[in-house]
Amino acid sequence: MNKSYPERAGRVVALCGGVGGAKLAFGLAHILGNDLTLLVNTGDDFEHLGLTVSPDIDTVLYTLSGLANRELGWGRQGESWNFMEALSTLGGETWFRLGDRDLAIHVERTRRLRAGETLSTITSSMVDHFGIEARVFPMSDQKVSTVVATPEGPLPFQRYFVERRCAPRVAGITFQGAVEADAPPQVISALNDPALRTIIICPSNPYLSIDPILAVPGIRSGIERADVPVIAVSPIIGGKAVKGPTAKIMAELAVPATSKAIAEHYGGVIDGLVIDHADADDRETVNCPVHVTTSLMTSDEDRIRLAGEVLDFAYRLAPNAEAITLRRGQ
Amino acid sequence: MNKSYPERAGRVVALCGGVGGAKLAFGLAHILGNDLTLLVNTGDDFEHLGLTVSPDIDTVLYTLSGLANRELGWGRQGESWNFMEALSTLGGETWFRLGDRDLAIHVERTRRLRAGETLSTITSSMVDHFGIEARVFPMSDQKVSTVVATPEGPLPFQRYFVERRCAPRVAGITFQGAVEADAPPQVISALNDPALRTIIICPSNPYLSIDPILAVPGIRSGIERADVPVIAVSPIIGGKAVKGPTAKIMAELAVPATSKAIAEHYGGVIDGLVIDHADADDRETVNCPVHVTTSLMTSDEDRIRLAGEVLDFAYRLAPNAEAITLRRGQ
Repeated sequence: MNKSYPERAGRVVALCGGVGGAKLAFGLAHILGNDLTLLVNTGDDFEHLGLTVSPDIDTVLYTLSGLANRELGWGRQGESWNFMEALSTLGGETWFRLGDRDLAIHVERTRRLRAGETLSTITSSMVDHFGIEARVFPMSDQKVSTVVATPEGPLPFQRYFVERRCAPRVAGITFQGAVEADAPPQVISALNDPALRTIIICPSNPYLSIDPILAVPGIRSGIERADVPVIAVSPIIGGKAVKGPTAKIMAELAVPATSKAIAEHYGGVIDGLVIDHADADDRETVNCPVHVTTSLMTSDEDRIRLAGEVLDFAYRLAPNAEAITLRRGQ
Repeated sequence: MNKSYPERAGRVVALCGGVGGAKLAFGLAHILGNDLTLLVNTGDDFEHLGLTVSPDIDTVLYTLSGLANRELGWGRQGESWNFMEALSTLGGETWFRLGDRDLAIHVERTRRLRAGETLSTITSSMVDHFGIEARVFPMSDQKVSTVVATPEGPLPFQRYFVERRCAPRVAGITFQGAVEADAPPQVISALNDPALRTIIICPSNPYLSIDPILAVPGIRSGIERADVPVIAVSPIIGGKAVKGPTAKIMAELAVPATSKAIAEHYGGVIDGLVIDHADADDRETVNCPVHVTTSLMTSDEDRIRLAGEVLDFAYRLAPNAEAITLRRGQ
């Protein structure tokens, strides 16, 4: 290895939803700095109180900048709720809780979108203001809306996820606008970059967080075209999701909550799957190379260790990416 | 007096700007309840951070509901500033400070305006939510913008007032859109109401807070047509304004800061002027009936006492309004 060319460690693209995915993104960003490009789900974005809310982008920004609320699992640490309380007095909608500090990102994003800036540009500017090294992009600057089909009829994502707390049975999931949506040019460039060494699918909900990203045609084709290993980290540990409705949705869709099912879900896209020791018995049933490790991320150290292992695994699968982990030791 | 018909106390319309005017409005509302209709200046309204801010309406709502911040002189009591701090980190504009609780009124108003509701309807709904008995209306549902002519060129009101702290010399003041603006129908009805007994001009800045209201043709003509005494309370005490730039602007416009000048400014509109003991020597120079009292309002008791005196004064000037103060003793 030629240590004088650390840039030969190569660039990495990672697909990411909210909380679980953002934890691995934190680890990847720690190792890769601005060699990491994150493509973030915007299927959950919605208008609330006249503000454009991008929950997964915000979770990623807060997580990477160390501002995330770890106890709550969403929003910002040290948050206050005086806006919400005052809004309630005015008869405003309070089912979706916006903290006082968190509100700044929604107000500023909405103002800039109305002034004609793209979500990509605004997100990049926020990345700079938060002092984040990694590059973060929405999967599209156009509107894509995740809609959950339920026995009660179709529910917009946040109504399903927050207001109904994932209670309705999921009969299907659609991504309105995805087929017509373009990926931002910076995302296409990142996928076409000759320095790209691997693509990581973070342990986000495959159905609600990763599928909408893959539903954007330019991203799907960019991933298929890229001659680098694509590695998914399974969000399932011991037949359960760490957080959120992944396992519940899999049951409702009559899919067993197993590593095998995750690999099959990503069939045709991934070249390797990272699973937890708790699911090591599934190893033989998975139809692609598997790396078994501890995939629960509790501390920053866990996040960085798992990210390193995922990159090492990708490196072993990639014939020409010998220097992928070079920067990690620095 | 027929004490069995307290409604014969009659109805009152008051014109009002921000802080100083709102104090008298509080006293009037205490005495009159829903027999008081407040017409509030919206010339200071502006778009900030993509939100429609109505500073004088908010000051009136907060003052009447007891939520106003008395120390600061604007905004809400017990306010927190976490939104502002977070916005600053994102590179947002922070010259106009919006507190976390205060933000609720701007977000909710903006949402409802965008949904097609009028400012009158939204304000009435907020009046209800805050448990305010008095009726509160903007001077118009259309946009009227106070612009201050200065040696540096024209400045929108908030840029002059907040950002520049009234430093530039005032060469003139215009109210863009006023001539084309309609008063809300409820305001026209209040001015035409046969039960109307008096019209009060609160001790707000005549140039910046009351003139824009009088510049709305339907309000001006409604006041001229109403066969009831119109009473102004002078905002000048001992040749100075209690708060704000009234005296400074008068000097810049080469008008002496005297009760006489206030009476002349409102010439053709008012039938009586309330002045402070400190200006009692001006009494003879004023070209209309004068009531001399203590006009500085420090406590709630001051506000209620002054409101009562203003109503009594109007009553003495109004031949047919014998019962105007009837409800006060209740």
